Amino acid sequence: MGDEILPKIGILGSGKGSNFGAILRSIQSGDLPAQVSVVISDVEGAGILDLAAAHNIPAHFVAPGKFRARLDEEAESSCIRLLTEHGAQWVVLAGFMRVLKGAFLEAFPERIVNIHPSLLPSFPGLRAWEQACDYGVKYTGCTVHMVDRGIDTGTILAQEPVPVLDNDTPDSLHQRIQQSEWILYPAVLKALVSGRITIRGRNAFWKR
Amino acid sequence: MGDEILPKIGILGSGKGSNFGAILRSIQSGDLPAQVSVVISDVEGAGILDLAAAHNIPAHFVAPGKFRARLDEEAESSCIRLLTEHGAQWVVLAGFMRVLKGAFLEAFPERIVNIHPSLLPSFPGLRAWEQACDYGVKYTGCTVHMVDRGIDTGTILAQEPVPVLDNDTPDSLHQRIQQSEWILYPAVLKALVSGRITIRGRNAFWKR
Repeated sequence: MGDEILPKIGILGSGKGSNFGAILRSIQSGDLPAQVSVVISDVEGAGILDLAAAHNIPAHFVAPGKFRARLDEEAESSCIRLLTEHGAQWVVLAGFMRVLKGAFLEAFPERIVNIHPSLLPSFPGLRAWEQACDYGVKYTGCTVHMVDRGIDTGTILAQEPVPVLDNDTPDSLHQRIQQSEWILYPAVLKALVSGRITIRGRNAFWKR
Repeated sequence: MGDEILPKIGILGSGKGSNFGAILRSIQSGDLPAQVSVVISDVEGAGILDLAAAHNIPAHFVAPGKFRARLDEEAESSCIRLLTEHGAQWVVLAGFMRVLKGAFLEAFPERIVNIHPSLLPSFPGLRAWEQACDYGVKYTGCTVHMVDRGIDTGTILAQEPVPVLDNDTPDSLHQRIQQSEWILYPAVLKALVSGRITIRGRNAFWKR
């Protein structure tokens, strides 16, 4: 009933969907006033698709095409069409392992967000928790940011520091960063879909 | 009397010496078991020299020579000689605005520390707080690190996150970072001179 007026979110993910799960829990608890209208994965049989199906949310595998780090043109068109058909007003990347190109960004201007497991601009790209361990930082964290043409370079909406412990392995650190992600991402999405975040250039301002 | 057994620290600074002041307070309160045996500045009349003199600590201006971003060979030799004459076992950079070159690093191997006003590796170099504002991060901070040949690239000993507020100016942010520095730097020096920090490659391990 009231669902009709809730902002619709489309989710793209490549993995088991733990951030998607956190978003679902936040919606179910009544904290995040949104609905997930479609989940898309570039990985056939990805856990995130099973999780969507288990919640009766439309779940689609889109074959990514011949490139390794991005979608080919056809795959990008398929994603845009699916998102549009399901009325997605926001596109939320949740462990999606490919870069989005121009057509996608133009279809959802200032409407695509991502979460990255470091305090950007430190450690963009793959396996950020491992980069952090190798560099020897004492704090890393996670960052929610708008998606632009770069790799993890868009305007930052929110960040959360996570300490690196002396006995951390990349895996133990990654787990602790993810626990922060599961709190931060739904909270930022709540503010975003409620119109409480204003973006001016590289700066995001929060209305309290 | 007991002074004889306290580890001796030489300090290099270019400004008013607020981190040096924090180190002095920590020594005077009995928290930091060390003594400052000499303060050197590349800036004639720098506040840090006045502060040293006011505490009866040997204070020396060393003319930096013709380069802008480093000491020339003669100036570097003068600094090394002064530090050695005053028995400095540790060299602490406190707002020192020049890069140290090979001879200096070889004279005090693994014995030179610096504090930088960002969460490295984000925002190395000058005016890190302004870089942070421009980039639009939500957290920056300060980093205590060993000094190597690079610019703010040495092994990290400790970091402290500082939030960036929506209404921060570069100045207000800088002030808040400095307040963190004044707590972090003496605490790290205490652990360092007490032998409680072990460095292996890029990682520093703290004995508790």
